[in-house]
Amino acid sequence: MADEIDGRTRELLEAKNFCHVATINSDGTPHVAVVWVDVNSHDVLLNTADGRHWPENLRRDPRITLTVVNHDDPYEYVSIDGTAIEMTHEGADEHIDAMAKKYLDKDEYPSRKPDEVRLLVRVRPEKVKRRES
Amino acid sequence: MADEIDGRTRELLEAKNFCHVATINSDGTPHVAVVWVDVNSHDVLLNTADGRHWPENLRRDPRITLTVVNHDDPYEYVSIDGTAIEMTHEGADEHIDAMAKKYLDKDEYPSRKPDEVRLLVRVRPEKVKRRES
Repeated sequence: MADEIDGRTRELLEAKNFCHVATINSDGTPHVAVVWVDVNSHDVLLNTADGRHWPENLRRDPRITLTVVNHDDPYEYVSIDGTAIEMTHEGADEHIDAMAKKYLDKDEYPSRKPDEVRLLVRVRPEKVKRRES
Repeated sequence: MADEIDGRTRELLEAKNFCHVATINSDGTPHVAVVWVDVNSHDVLLNTADGRHWPENLRRDPRITLTVVNHDDPYEYVSIDGTAIEMTHEGADEHIDAMAKKYLDKDEYPSRKPDEVRLLVRVRPEKVKRRES
């Protein structure tokens, strides 16, 4: 069942905080990557590229755990257990540009590689917890 | 086979950066907690308390993935795949005080709860990678 991203949790995801993306390797161990993060009305949006390790993990097992720490106070963080419900190329290029605007205040994503095919990952949150360590 | 924590990786762990501890839940999903981190000559040292979720995960499956982001430049981070080779109460109280000194400049850990039994977790690094996102 979906959980809501609202209030303080939404603020932390809308701010320029980074997201730790934990997925499951084929041997069962966790894999963690650190990426930009976006949120729409219901879901968390992540942007990656074809062939990277963590979206490959998601194709095998879509269960994902996201952690977003408040950069200004690392004792406050949000933990989101969810499922990758969509992985699409559609809109992925425009979305990485929007992310560059959010994080770098640049109109265009400056790190694009020539052969890179961007991938937009939509995560449906199932358990959202705000935590303090 | 053990990997070394040296150079820039060691600097990032010795600085007041936070550590994302990813362990494996009983259903195979990743669990992530954000904690203080310490390093000795070979191993990563973490401090927790009996009954917390992630050390319980480690008792079932000691495989662990640590991620330490440079707070001053979140595009630089270290990823460590390893194994929890020791979990002990011995020295755990002294160690959490040393951690309080490192992170808070306090001689004594200020958040100790009356019934809490501290636990020192030693992680042997097997694959250490410095990454830039």
